[in-house]
Amino acid sequence: MQAVHRIHNFNAGPAALPLPVLEEIKASFLDFQGTGMSIVEMSHRSKEFEAVLNDAVARTRRLLKLDSRYHVTFLQGGATLQFAMIPMNFLADRRSADYVNTGTWSTNAIKEARVLNKPVRVAASSEDRQFTYIPQNVAFSPEAVYAHITSNNTIRGTQWARFPETGGVPLVADMSSDFMSRPFDPAPFGLVYAGAQKNIGPAGVTMVIVREDLLARVPEQLPVMLKYTTYTAKNSLYNTPPCFAIYAVQLVLKWLEETVGGLEKMAAVNQAKAARVYGVIDASNGFYRGTAEPASRSQMNVTFRLQSEALEKQFLEEAVKNGLGGLKGHRSVGGCRASIYNAVPQAAVDALADYMEAFARQRG
Amino acid sequence: MQAVHRIHNFNAGPAALPLPVLEEIKASFLDFQGTGMSIVEMSHRSKEFEAVLNDAVARTRRLLKLDSRYHVTFLQGGATLQFAMIPMNFLADRRSADYVNTGTWSTNAIKEARVLNKPVRVAASSEDRQFTYIPQNVAFSPEAVYAHITSNNTIRGTQWARFPETGGVPLVADMSSDFMSRPFDPAPFGLVYAGAQKNIGPAGVTMVIVREDLLARVPEQLPVMLKYTTYTAKNSLYNTPPCFAIYAVQLVLKWLEETVGGLEKMAAVNQAKAARVYGVIDASNGFYRGTAEPASRSQMNVTFRLQSEALEKQFLEEAVKNGLGGLKGHRSVGGCRASIYNAVPQAAVDALADYMEAFARQRG
Repeated sequence: MQAVHRIHNFNAGPAALPLPVLEEIKASFLDFQGTGMSIVEMSHRSKEFEAVLNDAVARTRRLLKLDSRYHVTFLQGGATLQFAMIPMNFLADRRSADYVNTGTWSTNAIKEARVLNKPVRVAASSEDRQFTYIPQNVAFSPEAVYAHITSNNTIRGTQWARFPETGGVPLVADMSSDFMSRPFDPAPFGLVYAGAQKNIGPAGVTMVIVREDLLARVPEQLPVMLKYTTYTAKNSLYNTPPCFAIYAVQLVLKWLEETVGGLEKMAAVNQAKAARVYGVIDASNGFYRGTAEPASRSQMNVTFRLQSEALEKQFLEEAVKNGLGGLKGHRSVGGCRASIYNAVPQAAVDALADYMEAFARQRG
Repeated sequence: MQAVHRIHNFNAGPAALPLPVLEEIKASFLDFQGTGMSIVEMSHRSKEFEAVLNDAVARTRRLLKLDSRYHVTFLQGGATLQFAMIPMNFLADRRSADYVNTGTWSTNAIKEARVLNKPVRVAASSEDRQFTYIPQNVAFSPEAVYAHITSNNTIRGTQWARFPETGGVPLVADMSSDFMSRPFDPAPFGLVYAGAQKNIGPAGVTMVIVREDLLARVPEQLPVMLKYTTYTAKNSLYNTPPCFAIYAVQLVLKWLEETVGGLEKMAAVNQAKAARVYGVIDASNGFYRGTAEPASRSQMNVTFRLQSEALEKQFLEEAVKNGLGGLKGHRSVGGCRASIYNAVPQAAVDALADYMEAFARQRG
């Protein structure tokens, strides 16, 4: 068998997936579990697909240590649809919610709530220093229905190292870009959502974990696809879900549980990976400059600049020649970014670090 | 190489896909076009993915002979989200729309418009005879913003053989279950939508074709993911789209254009397939009984009953043993159903017809 050409993939999302997961999808693609059908040709109400879905839910419960108050559901439309669904579902009675603005995605979440004329308050923002840090000691309103945060910010490369104290107000978190990358205590969270395409699967499915008590706030008069209760009542099978994406998520969660060994182990791997890249940056005598304040640095998206855009261009071009892809920064900010999600192996990070050191040596 | 186990797949959706499409996905799954990445690991803003998306759009335009007034977009949430988006986008000014009720999906479309308190009128309904026919000579209101129909009804096995005259009111059609199965004149249509999982791909993407003039009706104050203008303005790339599903759709459309030879040829194949199954039913002296009125029969979903539920159970069980899957009727109506979408080959239909004849001979 010929070796398959594979690069080191630092894409920000859609992003690298574990190779064993891709290999399993490929191997079973024409005949899923002896059914004589592809997973993409099977009824979402078949016992085989329901087993896939239920296994993904069960693994999520175990990995995150969720108690029975939490529902695990699969939606579509990405985090951006959640930006609207959250206020539609939870602020129908005109009570207010608090938001912390840590960058583009938080800004969009606030904007979507306001499009719906929902009363939301920005409890804190890091816009004053271009979103390069995570605000500390945020004063949340005890009257807020929920407190919304973005746990990791892909564009500016910041991440909440510890989640904020809210004084009992349920946290609602967009965890799209660091979901399942580390363990966390679910108790303060009323809702957690994550587009799959960074850490847990391909694009096309959004995992939403919602706590039972918040469902009492969902109004009757909402389109059925925009009500969380539709998904919790029907195990995400009210209509045809994105079956292939859910199947891929299930395989990623299986890999996370059985091959990696759970979220504590995943977090240790991720810390080591991030430490390696930040280590190169910090030891480079200013050749590379991290854009996030050190205490707020993301373990998922390492954002950095070189001394000039011309040098950055050269850095990116030679990286591609060295089999390192996806290192270009977000189009809104430029620069460089290494996204080192769960599925990016230590070997890829080592190759990147070696390349960065060699490039700095030659050009520095 | 070992022969792959494949059954004859008559699932109602998700449903059979063309084998060459599945084989191509499988072959390129670890390394898409020499990029060293899977299609599911690539940025939706990469030139490779944009080429996939643009090719899917271009093939849709050619296959359906769409002029430049029509936008081809990819959304999520299935037809059910469209049930809500259509009135949200087009009835903001409280003008009314007409709906023809031909079964479960039309009923749900009407329900979703009413949840939003939109003024909709049921211009015609076939509920009086359990949705077993398509209403003729429907009188649409000239004041209606649009006239909504369901082109094919999967549960009761009916289909509009000719689309209704609306006197200039734009037709809006849920074509989920017969999209791309036959040519049609796009001119009377203001919007056509189709969940992919019957005729054009896997679950997880909905194609929406919308005519420019209707976009003027889209209100500013809607969540960004629920506005058609978001998708038309950004070539379906405002946020991360369901990349894998779009890729699969592109391959199905390529197969339709290059291997089948276009919609006229596809329609001829589909007519021959449907004629074969209905032929067995009609020649069975009442052993099989078609549930739809003959003039309204669907070319996509052949629904039929046997003399007793016990006999139906036996029919379905033995079918599975004969390698014929997915023949059970929808859970809401029971009975049997053969879904013979584009990707179900003549050979599968012949195998079904032979089995039906043999079963009737033995038990009749």
